[in-house]
Amino acid sequence: MARVVRFHEIGGPEVLRVEDIEVPAPQAGEVQIRVKAMGLNRAEVMFRTGQYVTEPSFPAILGYEAAGIVEAVGTGVTGFSVGDAVSVVPCFMLGEYGLHGELVNAPAIGIVKHPANLLWEEAAATWMMFTTAYGALVDIANIQAGQTVLIRAASSSVGLAAIQITKTLGAIPVALTRRGAKRDELLKQGAAHVIATEEQDLMAEVNRITDGKGAHVAFDPVGGPEVAKILEVLGYLGIFLQYGALDTAPLSVPVMPLLGKDLTVRGYQLFEITKDPAPLQKAKDFIVKGLASGTLRPVIARTFKLDEIAGAHRFMESNVQVGKIVVTV
Amino acid sequence: MARVVRFHEIGGPEVLRVEDIEVPAPQAGEVQIRVKAMGLNRAEVMFRTGQYVTEPSFPAILGYEAAGIVEAVGTGVTGFSVGDAVSVVPCFMLGEYGLHGELVNAPAIGIVKHPANLLWEEAAATWMMFTTAYGALVDIANIQAGQTVLIRAASSSVGLAAIQITKTLGAIPVALTRRGAKRDELLKQGAAHVIATEEQDLMAEVNRITDGKGAHVAFDPVGGPEVAKILEVLGYLGIFLQYGALDTAPLSVPVMPLLGKDLTVRGYQLFEITKDPAPLQKAKDFIVKGLASGTLRPVIARTFKLDEIAGAHRFMESNVQVGKIVVTV
Repeated sequence: MARVVRFHEIGGPEVLRVEDIEVPAPQAGEVQIRVKAMGLNRAEVMFRTGQYVTEPSFPAILGYEAAGIVEAVGTGVTGFSVGDAVSVVPCFMLGEYGLHGELVNAPAIGIVKHPANLLWEEAAATWMMFTTAYGALVDIANIQAGQTVLIRAASSSVGLAAIQITKTLGAIPVALTRRGAKRDELLKQGAAHVIATEEQDLMAEVNRITDGKGAHVAFDPVGGPEVAKILEVLGYLGIFLQYGALDTAPLSVPVMPLLGKDLTVRGYQLFEITKDPAPLQKAKDFIVKGLASGTLRPVIARTFKLDEIAGAHRFMESNVQVGKIVVTV
Repeated sequence: MARVVRFHEIGGPEVLRVEDIEVPAPQAGEVQIRVKAMGLNRAEVMFRTGQYVTEPSFPAILGYEAAGIVEAVGTGVTGFSVGDAVSVVPCFMLGEYGLHGELVNAPAIGIVKHPANLLWEEAAATWMMFTTAYGALVDIANIQAGQTVLIRAASSSVGLAAIQITKTLGAIPVALTRRGAKRDELLKQGAAHVIATEEQDLMAEVNRITDGKGAHVAFDPVGGPEVAKILEVLGYLGIFLQYGALDTAPLSVPVMPLLGKDLTVRGYQLFEITKDPAPLQKAKDFIVKGLASGTLRPVIARTFKLDEIAGAHRFMESNVQVGKIVVTV
């Protein structure tokens, strides 16, 4: 028996329960982990409220991220032994696995022996933020030193990871945030510039930063009407990457900048990287190297206990956090 | 003195005049051509009516395509001699050069000694259609054998070139046309399938053709509301390439297919290829090889005389043509 987060109906944070259940032994290709810490994601809030791309079947488990110690190994799994300290790259959809609990099974393809300099909380916070940003900025957009990258919702965990990866590559991270309240924090987190989009003129600011050439890449988890304005401030061959749909309204894409600047508008989910062994391995290598050297470091907004899981979800919904929300066992 | 097509005001085909003017000697980096045949493009109609990306200054010359014999060579130009039979890849914007006349100057970077098996009319009709389709389908989308390519406005010259290039690569060209009137002609021109979008269910037809997997690429010079439907029938990692804006309304891009299928929406103008020497050379090589072997062959809808230039523009505006409109001297 182990305590696992489950819910039995769609609803607010109050539907989440920590229940004692019998966790099955790991199947072929799976690893069982005694969890030390879990990372919380917007996807889990959407899954709980019935707004995610997959729908829960009840009782539903959830959770994309965890770190802990290998408890058991399924048949056919090589490279991992009982007692290894590991964390998990999200490489499945909610509904297939759920990593929020004391004892969980996960697909071996996503397991990583993370660098020993990471705390459990950091290891649990690493893989969604850095793999999502890596896939978009490195694997797809292939950003180069000196390029300008606009990072929307920059105080989110993925946004902060994007700032760090952009800096690592010698490119220029520009944080977009709605109001100026998080400006100092974002500069402290590595943003070269911060633009408060509800208070400043986006076009004027991007022109100033790029000497009128426009930005090379924009990285956006929101969508909605703001996207048309962002496309206007991209330069020739600019790439707009959307990795979330907090606003589910269709994008309005103006054709004159699209054609006149040969722009790319690209939808992206990290599973494009994490379900394919070759790019997944490259992502793991890039991120492990950055973590080991200290150029990449997960940012933790606040830590909760497992019993406070509903409070952790409520805190995520408050949108005041800068960085990752982590739950410890 | 030579007869050159010019216009002195924005307007209908009637503003076009064939005027005797003194054509200046070619400058450094230019080649002067005694023209035998000219290709007509939608861009010239839009330029004449004030709807193009560049605006005419009067008296305005125009024309992206011509074939003929080298009459003179500017300083610094190597590889071409007086008397060579050549044609011109569009590698400039209307307003910079204009190739519709008996004697014209063109930038040397775009000049090609086309294969001897081409008629003058064919050489004049080659470069806009094939280079536009090549750049999108080969250079950007990198289509592979067995992939399905949806080609909108398939009876246009670029559409027909896209059919031929798709076939050359072992991929499956699917012609999209509004009504069924051009179905037989499009099949004759090499389309593997024809979908009349106003008469058939696009989703059902694409599912049938692709065994439910969706199309890999769509290639579209129109834009507008139909694009949302086309995005719905693309498969995972599908690429939508827009190379014209006959409908200038913003695209409405549904976010669920964009994110769920990791789609790419890409604006594209052939200048992306033709203003950069390395991809331009690859384009010339690919197309010359196809022309020489006969796998690529420009399709000519109708030929006009130089004095009939206004009639040629009127014919283009009628939209009944299948293939290229050519004007001969």
